[in-house]
Amino acid sequence: MFSGLSAFPLTPLNENSIDEKAFSNLVSRLAAAGVDSIGALGSTGSYAYLTREERCSAAKIAVDSAQGTPVMVGIGALRTRDVLLLAEDAQSAGANAVLLAPVSYQKLTQDEVFKLYEQVTRTLSVPLCVYDNPGTTHFEFTDELHSRIASLPSVASIKIPGVPSDPDEAKARVERLRALIPSTVSIGVSGDAFGATGLNAGCDAWYSVIGGLFPRTCLAITRAAQEKDATRAEAEAQQLEGFWSMFRQFGSLRVVAAAAEMLELTKGSSLPLPIRPIPENARKNLQQILSVLNLG
Amino acid sequence: MFSGLSAFPLTPLNENSIDEKAFSNLVSRLAAAGVDSIGALGSTGSYAYLTREERCSAAKIAVDSAQGTPVMVGIGALRTRDVLLLAEDAQSAGANAVLLAPVSYQKLTQDEVFKLYEQVTRTLSVPLCVYDNPGTTHFEFTDELHSRIASLPSVASIKIPGVPSDPDEAKARVERLRALIPSTVSIGVSGDAFGATGLNAGCDAWYSVIGGLFPRTCLAITRAAQEKDATRAEAEAQQLEGFWSMFRQFGSLRVVAAAAEMLELTKGSSLPLPIRPIPENARKNLQQILSVLNLG
Repeated sequence: MFSGLSAFPLTPLNENSIDEKAFSNLVSRLAAAGVDSIGALGSTGSYAYLTREERCSAAKIAVDSAQGTPVMVGIGALRTRDVLLLAEDAQSAGANAVLLAPVSYQKLTQDEVFKLYEQVTRTLSVPLCVYDNPGTTHFEFTDELHSRIASLPSVASIKIPGVPSDPDEAKARVERLRALIPSTVSIGVSGDAFGATGLNAGCDAWYSVIGGLFPRTCLAITRAAQEKDATRAEAEAQQLEGFWSMFRQFGSLRVVAAAAEMLELTKGSSLPLPIRPIPENARKNLQQILSVLNLG
Repeated sequence: MFSGLSAFPLTPLNENSIDEKAFSNLVSRLAAAGVDSIGALGSTGSYAYLTREERCSAAKIAVDSAQGTPVMVGIGALRTRDVLLLAEDAQSAGANAVLLAPVSYQKLTQDEVFKLYEQVTRTLSVPLCVYDNPGTTHFEFTDELHSRIASLPSVASIKIPGVPSDPDEAKARVERLRALIPSTVSIGVSGDAFGATGLNAGCDAWYSVIGGLFPRTCLAITRAAQEKDATRAEAEAQQLEGFWSMFRQFGSLRVVAAAAEMLELTKGSSLPLPIRPIPENARKNLQQILSVLNLG
């Protein structure tokens, strides 16, 4: 389950609760499109903003709605004691894997993060994907740390934040990391603008936010790359270009949440306050992008 | 209550609970030393790592143990809905003020943070101190934003992260901010290494982590600065020099937690995992600093 397209849906929500029906529909839609796995409660799934109860309920809905497609559930939290409880909950809900980011408030050391993964993997009965996302966790993994963590039992994949945009540099980046980790551990690219380049550079998986909204489009990119047709993968990805500048400006969560609302997949903004919707002129721009493209 | 020495104690804790007796003793000790106010559940008070129930209980203990010394309680959380509940809890516990940092996972915009403060201050019946701490929140306030927020009702103080080490530059920094905010809003310096320089530069308050451990020493610095004796303030602060390099290397929380344990004010590390104690050689160094100095 740690290769191909892993689609990360939004968690539709308002200030009071999760919209369980909308979430179930989002997940079913991904499964029906044939994505290789579903990442529930990733950053775009707003895991960091939800209570334990809400996360538990979202994990169950994701597993129940995935129609057999493997589901990975985010278990990140500031405190190890909470991560351990969330791991239990995810496994009880039937998650096929868990995704763990070293969320921080006080700056963490490399050794503290190693020990976090060591402690958590000791209790797991499903595989774990390491979630390297310095933009939200403010923790920078060294490659040495990736190597140490990847050797822990249960570690099955690393979700890296991106690759260099130059194809040769991207390939060198992936090969450098690959040389430091067991062959059983896959590498997945995230940061959607780097998806095609990452897959073409040899990443096994694309952990994709935009794939949570447009699974057919992202599957076409992924399959092209898997068939070693780098040119077609890049060409398929080209049509998503309009999103990347909006992602950079407003963050992928705000943009994907607005698009989901426009596509009537969700009601309301799906953003937990203090996070607010993109401004009106950006909405118009996004509406324009959506109306021109035939995404799915 | 937003001038002079505001002392920020640790919240003594282990993986299961808060050590309520040790916390009560820490707070009483600050009150007995005559600090001007007490900041419970600041960053060093590990607010970000505690449940709502734990924070509610800590707020009550702080108020009950402060013997009339004004108590400010940290109400920061990732989600506005939680901040509002924590504000209610703090006020019910008898807090004299609240302290709010714009905690983030998804990067926040200036406008989102303004609206957070706007929404929270609308519900408050006690004053609020703006907590500007980019090292933990990863949010950078512009001076324009400080100006907008400081004009909201209930805003009484700004806790700034530090000042330039050059006294003239520090003074210019404080004056620049002062010119942009109402005269009723005080400015307090934090980042303990900048305490004396900040007070000498015209800050009204010192929001101090080390003051949560050595209130007498920090009161001597504060009173000297308040009496416009900059030289004596800097000289008093000089004896704390040994701490600043350790703070820079390990973060103030880990160092203060180790010192509190050595001084037998707490049992165990008081650090929430994944955060871990400073290494053994650093402990020896800290023990040496403590044994040489006559701090209190």
